[in-house]
Amino acid sequence: MSTDNLSSSVIFPLGEKVESPNFSGAVWMNMLTPRDSACPVGNVTFEPGCINSWHTHAGGQVLLATGGRGYYQEWGKPARELHAGDVVEIPQGAKHWHGAATDSWFVHLFILVNPEIGLTTWLEPVSHEEYSLLK
Amino acid sequence: MSTDNLSSSVIFPLGEKVESPNFSGAVWMNMLTPRDSACPVGNVTFEPGCINSWHTHAGGQVLLATGGRGYYQEWGKPARELHAGDVVEIPQGAKHWHGAATDSWFVHLFILVNPEIGLTTWLEPVSHEEYSLLK
Repeated sequence: MSTDNLSSSVIFPLGEKVESPNFSGAVWMNMLTPRDSACPVGNVTFEPGCINSWHTHAGGQVLLATGGRGYYQEWGKPARELHAGDVVEIPQGAKHWHGAATDSWFVHLFILVNPEIGLTTWLEPVSHEEYSLLK
Repeated sequence: MSTDNLSSSVIFPLGEKVESPNFSGAVWMNMLTPRDSACPVGNVTFEPGCINSWHTHAGGQVLLATGGRGYYQEWGKPARELHAGDVVEIPQGAKHWHGAATDSWFVHLFILVNPEIGLTTWLEPVSHEEYSLLK
């Protein structure tokens, strides 16, 4: 898939394409600070229709949406639509997913909070039926 | 001064204009997460020619440049020119300043690292003669 229509969303370099069973499609990851630093920051770019699986961060996470259109959902709550400029504070241990809308690229920064507490725990994929209801 | 020419750099809302003796000109601050949270994140917009005074962060700081052109300098080192996409990891306790170039707006995100260790300590203004040598 071409990334030509993404250029207006790109502030930080796209980074490496990630092959992972924890993402439903193509995703690019660029760590902006070292993953083992006191403040790991990364830039993630999701192709349209790509989301990650349900997961938790032991220490919490902050998302800063910088381009495109996507979603964030916490377990048991409605999905929240995200656009450039939106901020999500993910509580410690909260089960959640995030990613692109079906018809739009989505780019966000992430900041791992309290990384000394623990890492990411990956869980089951998001129900395709539920995701497909999000426009 | 008009902010019209800044529009292409704005992802996060400009926030409040700050009146502070620690900045040499007009600056706008928008806290994206609470200042007393485990991961304080803010968006700072400097008008052309505006920089902050020398200062330190007890726990360190990360800067993510998102628009315009500016500078970061650590005490005893040459100033580093910053553009959108540049990242600065400021060590714990390192004396430094940052801000806009003389002829350009500058916008960056900041992340306070290890905020539980301590806060920002403001020191003397940057020498006008030294700053004016930066183009």
